[in-house]
Amino acid sequence: MSTLLHIDSSVRAANNPNPDHDSISKNIARRFIETWQQNRPEDDYIYRDVGMNPPDFISQDWIGAVFTPPEQKRSPPTQRETLAFSDTLIAEVAKADVILISSPMYNYGMPAHLKAWFDQIVRIDKTFDFDLSRGDFPPLQPILSGKTLIIVTSSGEFGFEKGGIRETSGHLAPHLRTLSKYLGGVDTVYEIAAEYQEFGDERHRTSVANARDRAESLAGKLSE
Amino acid sequence: MSTLLHIDSSVRAANNPNPDHDSISKNIARRFIETWQQNRPEDDYIYRDVGMNPPDFISQDWIGAVFTPPEQKRSPPTQRETLAFSDTLIAEVAKADVILISSPMYNYGMPAHLKAWFDQIVRIDKTFDFDLSRGDFPPLQPILSGKTLIIVTSSGEFGFEKGGIRETSGHLAPHLRTLSKYLGGVDTVYEIAAEYQEFGDERHRTSVANARDRAESLAGKLSE
Repeated sequence: MSTLLHIDSSVRAANNPNPDHDSISKNIARRFIETWQQNRPEDDYIYRDVGMNPPDFISQDWIGAVFTPPEQKRSPPTQRETLAFSDTLIAEVAKADVILISSPMYNYGMPAHLKAWFDQIVRIDKTFDFDLSRGDFPPLQPILSGKTLIIVTSSGEFGFEKGGIRETSGHLAPHLRTLSKYLGGVDTVYEIAAEYQEFGDERHRTSVANARDRAESLAGKLSE
Repeated sequence: MSTLLHIDSSVRAANNPNPDHDSISKNIARRFIETWQQNRPEDDYIYRDVGMNPPDFISQDWIGAVFTPPEQKRSPPTQRETLAFSDTLIAEVAKADVILISSPMYNYGMPAHLKAWFDQIVRIDKTFDFDLSRGDFPPLQPILSGKTLIIVTSSGEFGFEKGGIRETSGHLAPHLRTLSKYLGGVDTVYEIAAEYQEFGDERHRTSVANARDRAESLAGKLSE
């Protein structure tokens, strides 16, 4: 039995009174999850919609608490409480074997909501450690490993991929790839992208249909 | 007389009981501002510390309000209220001749706090317009122009610049450059970077000292 962690980050719901407003990334991710659960109904499933329920922004007190050794931490309602939600989110990542993150591209990067989630989970001695004796490359090293990561993205424009015409403006998937090492998914990152949303044309419909098919076939393959 | 807009985004204060905890990016930005104000005390100055006071995350209701034509917007406390803070932030950007943004690198990109600010100000018919008749390149065009943008960054590691050893992991300055067009600063973007914070060594001290000097000299030059 394995554990599937699913993070959605669009501010749009998957289903709205007007279906034109439905989140594209959430619906592609949902296709992945439904296929997976059909094949492996016994697997654990953890879901967070950070688009609808964004994590708190980190703060100076949060950083202070993170760098206070456990034995020196003050009791609630101070430092332990400041980190309680971060502890919960990190435990979910640590428990997961497969992590699915869906993200629309907002202003050429991830939504602030999803960045707030990452800011809560990238934490010293939890998801990375730091040792200057390792020298400059790298003093930081991830702690988690062996996970499979699937990234689902949806963008209004197109051509953000490597070699694409908007490559230098694409700060969503490359950033998620950089951060994937803290999720323990450095070796196996799959990416499913839907594009052309702003154009609302045939290219868009094809792109979304292909992304849904890819989500289904990838879920089928990985859950075998 | 011109207007200077200053956005800080570190969660750390510029001054703390323990000076080791002082925000580096805020102190470099402060050096720029002090020099500017010495030369041009009559200039207007607008300040936001989004690290300490982060803007609300955008929401599905926010997007709904943005895409409702002004004449159809419902009266407070509904759609107009949802956009009131965004209106304020955009007015500040529109009024500014010079925009200084300081940002620490958190997890290889900007803090969620600063992304939340961008998500509030990049808005159709305010900071960009959209016209499919312009074809694929680009249907989106910025509305504001003629501003000077200064980016101050501080990072724990080093080598994130173009051609640097961590170039592919650097998602802070390139993302800010992509977004600069919505601030009207596409032609003149200056960048001041302090690095090596995690190492706490001589390279770090030199990097910060150089960045402060550069902030002072750039402010002197631009405020002439």
